[in-house]
Amino acid sequence: MITIASDFGSPYPAAMKGVLCQRTDARLVDVAHDFPRQDVRAAAFWLREVLPYFPPATHLVVVDPGVGTDRDAIVVRAGEHVLVGPDNGVLLPAARRFAPADDRETYVIDETSLEPVEPTGRGTTPRSGLGREHGDSSGRSETGRRPASNTFHGRDVFAPAAAAVHDADRDALEDLSTLSPVDEYVDLELPAPTLEPAPSDPDCAVGEVMVVDGFGNVITNVPGRFLEGRNEIVADGEIVPVGETFAAVDPGERLATVGSHGNVELDVNRGRGDEAFGLEAGDRVVLEAA
Amino acid sequence: MITIASDFGSPYPAAMKGVLCQRTDARLVDVAHDFPRQDVRAAAFWLREVLPYFPPATHLVVVDPGVGTDRDAIVVRAGEHVLVGPDNGVLLPAARRFAPADDRETYVIDETSLEPVEPTGRGTTPRSGLGREHGDSSGRSETGRRPASNTFHGRDVFAPAAAAVHDADRDALEDLSTLSPVDEYVDLELPAPTLEPAPSDPDCAVGEVMVVDGFGNVITNVPGRFLEGRNEIVADGEIVPVGETFAAVDPGERLATVGSHGNVELDVNRGRGDEAFGLEAGDRVVLEAA
Amino acid sequence: MITIASDFGSPYPAAMKGVLCQRTDARLVDVAHDFPRQDVRAAAFWLREVLPYFPPATHLVVVDPGVGTDRDAIVVRAGEHVLVGPDNGVLLPAARRFAPADDRETYVIDETSLEPVEPTGRGTTPRSGLGREHGDSSGRSETGRRPASNTFHGRDVFAPAAAAVHDADRDALEDLSTLSPVDEYVDLELPAPTLEPAPSDPDCAVGEVMVVDGFGNVITNVPGRFLEGRNEIVADGEIVPVGETFAAVDPGERLATVGSHGNVELDVNRGRGDEAFGLEAGDRVVLEAA
Repeated sequence: MITIASDFGSPYPAAMKGVLCQRTDARLVDVAHDFPRQDVRAAAFWLREVLPYFPPATHLVVVDPGVGTDRDAIVVRAGEHVLVGPDNGVLLPAARRFAPADDRETYVIDETSLEPVEPTGRGTTPRSGLGREHGDSSGRSETGRRPASNTFHGRDVFAPAAAAVHDADRDALEDLSTLSPVDEYVDLELPAPTLEPAPSDPDCAVGEVMVVDGFGNVITNVPGRFLEGRNEIVADGEIVPVGETFAAVDPGERLATVGSHGNVELDVNRGRGDEAFGLEAGDRVVLEAA
Repeated sequence: MITIASDFGSPYPAAMKGVLCQRTDARLVDVAHDFPRQDVRAAAFWLREVLPYFPPATHLVVVDPGVGTDRDAIVVRAGEHVLVGPDNGVLLPAARRFAPADDRETYVIDETSLEPVEPTGRGTTPRSGLGREHGDSSGRSETGRRPASNTFHGRDVFAPAAAAVHDADRDALEDLSTLSPVDEYVDLELPAPTLEPAPSDPDCAVGEVMVVDGFGNVITNVPGRFLEGRNEIVADGEIVPVGETFAAVDPGERLATVGSHGNVELDVNRGRGDEAFGLEAGDRVVLEAA
Repeated sequence: MITIASDFGSPYPAAMKGVLCQRTDARLVDVAHDFPRQDVRAAAFWLREVLPYFPPATHLVVVDPGVGTDRDAIVVRAGEHVLVGPDNGVLLPAARRFAPADDRETYVIDETSLEPVEPTGRGTTPRSGLGREHGDSSGRSETGRRPASNTFHGRDVFAPAAAAVHDADRDALEDLSTLSPVDEYVDLELPAPTLEPAPSDPDCAVGEVMVVDGFGNVITNVPGRFLEGRNEIVADGEIVPVGETFAAVDPGERLATVGSHGNVELDVNRGRGDEAFGLEAGDRVVLEAA
């Protein structure tokens, strides 16, 4: 199985799926293609929360603001899962969730050794002339090999790499000629909150909004147990009831609850928490005992 | 085959798909994940119109404004189809379309008897500490079993139930230890229009807007035969031409037509009917012979 | 494999998938369902750019502003690929990319000979009465056959045709009783730019915006080689730097680059090119040597 996640919107992911279908019979499952654009941290958070619900799989991830720069393309084996994507940290929080460091290996992809991606068919190219894509010699190297596009590594680099990795022996990835082990990579850590006076029994949490979901729920990095035993808290200076479910408060009312990822969420029953609390991803948030 | 429908947006459905892939080899087909948020009636309408085009299947439906309350999770077998979702009526209009009452059975799901959903991997949990999700003892019952989240039953209850039901004998669901037959459930009926002077030959229909689709087409509950033999009607006091197709009127012009679901639609050729008619889901609409 | 592309949004494509699942075991892959509404040219452009990355497949395409008029439904075999959709030109640019004219065949679909699409189940129809959809006799022909809806040929015509074509011998489509060869069809050519003083070495390109993607990137029809050897160009009178990647300029800054389709794009690094350049699909654009 290959899962696919990106910030590409539509229809670019279809080209990735086409390449995958050309090269492997793996089952394909979309995770999401509407991650916040070029927001590595938001994608890393969602992947950490969602991917562990899948059985062992190859996870193709393309959230890649540095596409076309010299950032590497990497493969991370983490326990029984394998992740493929850019070396910008987006894979790491999920990889750490999958397996401890002694059961993880990281490889850099030699892009030049991948079989080049070519569109099928032998029809006419556009009347308007040829870009680098379509067979003119100008874009080819001296060996005649067409280089990857500078802007769509999802199609030209990551999808072929994911297909190759999927069909290889997960425990012998070092045998793939396209992969070389590396020790250095961008090791993104999602931010941790400050819990006072003690992490084990906090009365105050200074945290951060990790993401806002499509419902407008404000998902913080404060662990859900901050709400244990509390009927209300003070969030950014205002008293907010604590509920086990949205329905604990009337429609339109605010509440703090523990989200499905285990963190404190600031929500509105049948409404948008982000608007009610005036918060967005990256904002600092202070929670206190009431 | 398992179809999946929700109002979850993205990326939450991916966690449901992960759980399904862990527990069954069933083919998965997305119906929609952008149903109007927490609008049981709109989802019930769409499901009734769309699901009957599928071959016999298990249909997983999560539009669940009461998540975390004591509303039950239910399974409805209706002819050769099986529906899984919350007991809020969302399944019933489709179930009635599938089969008459004497070929339908309803079961309540014993959530505590489902094999708990656990993320895969044995890596580190977030540095920030542990919520109820991630293995701390605080959220577990005395038996050590992790309870379902209060906010994401799609992942923790309905997906496991759908996998179990799919892999069971459809005609012996009572043998599943997680299911108990029930006679009482929320039996949602979608509203019917008033047709005067007689339903068989109406000159006036007082109906309701069921949904507005993504094109802005206003889909009413008035049966399409109201338009038969008419070249124009009066909709909310204004004369509107009747057309067999959008192209019956010029681009930008309004028309009444019979939609693909068999009901009267108020549309604009290459435009948005909801804006032109000033109508939204739930609004009353009066159609009269011109 | 059947790929599916439309401008239907949601949940209409699910009904098409249901029909496909009823009639074939083919693997289904979504290309996109959010093509610009009823914009044949935009869809034709995207399909030409995306479909060639798939292995040989049946491609179901429904962008059909003339639904319900007398426009034909057609099938185009182009090399190893088969396309199914309305005869409005949307299939042709992809077909030409797949294969030259002597390896293409076009057929018209006899809609009346397709096995009619019927919803499954034998349950109750809506209390409100029956539209043409739901079994009343009024909408049936004298043979008792239910006609296709006037507004949803994706479900009632194109999906059944795609299933039939997929399961037939691609090289003997003329044996299908539902297909008849035709020589005349709408042969859409996407517009070509004017390149002066010579196409081989242009200093000035008068082109057009083909589409704006979800990132706001403005995709023109000017071939990417216009940018070769240039550090900046003049786009609609303003100097714009040329970059190999978005990251060649600072976030928020404009650039011209060669997109993944080989054409000149006018973009903003981590921003929206359409807003910065004031351009939308169909606009004329003039690029000049700086």
